[in-house]
Amino acid sequence: MKKDLVEPRTLPGFMELLPQDQIELDNIRNLIENSYKKFGFLPIDTPIIEDSNVLLAKAGGETEKQIYRFAKGDNDLSLRFDLTVPLAKYVAKNYGVLSFPFRRYQIGKVYRAERPQKGRYREFYQCDIDVIGDGELAISNDAEMPSIIYQIFSKLNFGKFTIRINNRKLLGGFFESLGLEDKIEPVLRIVDKLDKIGKENVEELLADEKIEKEKIDRILDFVASKENPIEYLDKLNIQNETFMNGLSEIKEVSKYMVAFGVPKDYFRIDLSIARGLDYYTGTVFETIIDAYPNLGSVCSGGRYDNLAEYYTDKKLPGVGISIGLTRLYYVLKEYKLLGEQINSSISKAIILPMSEDLSYSIKVATMLRDMNINTEIYFEGKAFKKKLNYANKQNIPYAIIIGEDEEKANTITIKNMITGEQSNIELSQLNRELFL
Amino acid sequence: MKKDLVEPRTLPGFMELLPQDQIELDNIRNLIENSYKKFGFLPIDTPIIEDSNVLLAKAGGETEKQIYRFAKGDNDLSLRFDLTVPLAKYVAKNYGVLSFPFRRYQIGKVYRAERPQKGRYREFYQCDIDVIGDGELAISNDAEMPSIIYQIFSKLNFGKFTIRINNRKLLGGFFESLGLEDKIEPVLRIVDKLDKIGKENVEELLADEKIEKEKIDRILDFVASKENPIEYLDKLNIQNETFMNGLSEIKEVSKYMVAFGVPKDYFRIDLSIARGLDYYTGTVFETIIDAYPNLGSVCSGGRYDNLAEYYTDKKLPGVGISIGLTRLYYVLKEYKLLGEQINSSISKAIILPMSEDLSYSIKVATMLRDMNINTEIYFEGKAFKKKLNYANKQNIPYAIIIGEDEEKANTITIKNMITGEQSNIELSQLNRELFL
Repeated sequence: MKKDLVEPRTLPGFMELLPQDQIELDNIRNLIENSYKKFGFLPIDTPIIEDSNVLLAKAGGETEKQIYRFAKGDNDLSLRFDLTVPLAKYVAKNYGVLSFPFRRYQIGKVYRAERPQKGRYREFYQCDIDVIGDGELAISNDAEMPSIIYQIFSKLNFGKFTIRINNRKLLGGFFESLGLEDKIEPVLRIVDKLDKIGKENVEELLADEKIEKEKIDRILDFVASKENPIEYLDKLNIQNETFMNGLSEIKEVSKYMVAFGVPKDYFRIDLSIARGLDYYTGTVFETIIDAYPNLGSVCSGGRYDNLAEYYTDKKLPGVGISIGLTRLYYVLKEYKLLGEQINSSISKAIILPMSEDLSYSIKVATMLRDMNINTEIYFEGKAFKKKLNYANKQNIPYAIIIGEDEEKANTITIKNMITGEQSNIELSQLNRELFL
Repeated sequence: MKKDLVEPRTLPGFMELLPQDQIELDNIRNLIENSYKKFGFLPIDTPIIEDSNVLLAKAGGETEKQIYRFAKGDNDLSLRFDLTVPLAKYVAKNYGVLSFPFRRYQIGKVYRAERPQKGRYREFYQCDIDVIGDGELAISNDAEMPSIIYQIFSKLNFGKFTIRINNRKLLGGFFESLGLEDKIEPVLRIVDKLDKIGKENVEELLADEKIEKEKIDRILDFVASKENPIEYLDKLNIQNETFMNGLSEIKEVSKYMVAFGVPKDYFRIDLSIARGLDYYTGTVFETIIDAYPNLGSVCSGGRYDNLAEYYTDKKLPGVGISIGLTRLYYVLKEYKLLGEQINSSISKAIILPMSEDLSYSIKVATMLRDMNINTEIYFEGKAFKKKLNYANKQNIPYAIIIGEDEEKANTITIKNMITGEQSNIELSQLNRELFL
């Protein structure tokens, strides 16, 4: 009797790729990971499941609603929703044995039960780096972060992008000097609508916040895009300590970004960005794909004063960035910004045995693997055309045909699957260069 | 007012390593992944969360009790407990667009709420490869699997190991020939205790199963370790079709394992192993560390007739192996079997700037990174001794000291952190070989 089948479906909001696409995503992931390592970041790998009391020590509001939280036995468990809270836990827990500044990277899946919609995922990879200081942390670290973003994104080769930087102390100090330090958040939210609703409407909304006309003019002047922001800030001559600190910091960050080799047209001081007002305290970054500014930031981060205040009395300032790999891959794919992947196969060569005994084919495969050439053997007893068809579909660039003639003569026949060219070579002539 | 702190703890049964150990685990993971790629397996990455109806289409008994299952909104969700069920779902779902034989690898975390105990984890990495045929699959694939195990474990260099192989058809056919095909499982369970409880007790237990004395003798003879198992099986001359199929298969697998370069003392036909009676139907493997046979198998697998029968009518035979990376790492660490990791640092060089302006230091770091040398800069303004101490703790092999003298002369001072040797070189002489 035939049993009932279950439909093999994957939950909505969960990315599950076909192998060809998975290879592309893995290539991006590897590029990111290798770049993080190139700057000397250390790997950590925290659990996906944490005790809810630990994970949610700080969380609240929107985030908490999106958390996958459940009981198992007596345990109240939650899936991590970012890699920052687990880092805070990790550093507080291992404070005594870590070396500071602690430079760590982590690449892993995080979970948020967002409303499912195109390009939004409930399970997604974050690729984070952070540098955590013990009590203090030099500002030069803040310049390294955007430089790493530049390294990665210029190699991804998806076109022109701009790293926008700002410093929360500039915003804080400026608004303090206007006596508006409590209104930074609503003001910036209103100002952000400038392009959409126009200057007059923005002025009206700001007036609704009970801000005087003269201050509104100064705010609009401050957040406007400008040719030379540092010069502008100097000229403001605001004698507020927070502001002056912020100015000195952003000058140092800009200077060292140039030293790190970030071209001047790839970064811009933008006094209108704030990013997570409750978290960042100094430098903030975001990264915009120039051709698609409306997609929002594809890599953001910044400086914070205190990583782990919910877990420890130690003051642990840090600076970090996060790349949302799953979202980034979706965007690059959707907007056809992924560089031409001429060869997205894993195998560089496939052996097609034409005789019954496979020993010679296996020997050739082993030789290739020992030369670091990824090689597979087509073991199935199918027609030659079917075998070639399989190799073609997998984008494998070289097929190696081994029949009884080849085996007797100790040769192999190599077929270039792109040009169709075919040549017979002595086994002793086999070398890595043939497959590059 | 000081707020209450939450203790930054990690749940029991969840592995969370310090960076030095994480580097070791990652090295093992990369070795496994690169080996899988070298044999042409394609990556897939299925979600950790699945619909419970899909994930548990087959499960039952002990497994189901260990599953993390929970509701979110209207959804009944479960965390995957292995990578095989998600593979079955994936192949059934994408049957029309995959090329067969479908060779996939997946490395990812799986979840089982086992009773916490030393060396048992609730979250652990599995590293799986499987080859799935469409309707049929050549037996030579079964020989490739243990050959990949051999490649990986010999490179891990943890000492002598033995891949035990058997074929379920031999067991099935032999027990059929005795009229005991329904008793394979209890009989093998009893026989497995031979070393512990002795021959007489085993005979008694088998008699309790209502097996006649003459059959008991034949069973004990069959499962006993032997010099030449193939010769023994040939001589039995059992005219049972299942048995004869199994014999022909194990002969082919043995022959090609030799062709794949597995030394004869690294594998052994062991007629007493069965592994997962409800699942495997042909070849079965397990891998034992010779010095620690009681640790059990560190890599197992086998041949199955039908991967995805709960999701599709298509017949999808396959063969696969799984390495439990988390458990393997635990065992290698616990028994001090990890090869000497002379250098387990990420950074090969650390720049120690001794002057205030960092631009020259940043320039040198960029040059090194462009040569593919992982390099970090110590940005903090600490005493020289503290800087060296940090480099030492991180096992970074080379420190590059850059003071005003070096900058003026366009040189760097390189200190070998192991020998203590120090030399000053022109920047134009900087090259990769200095750091190898």
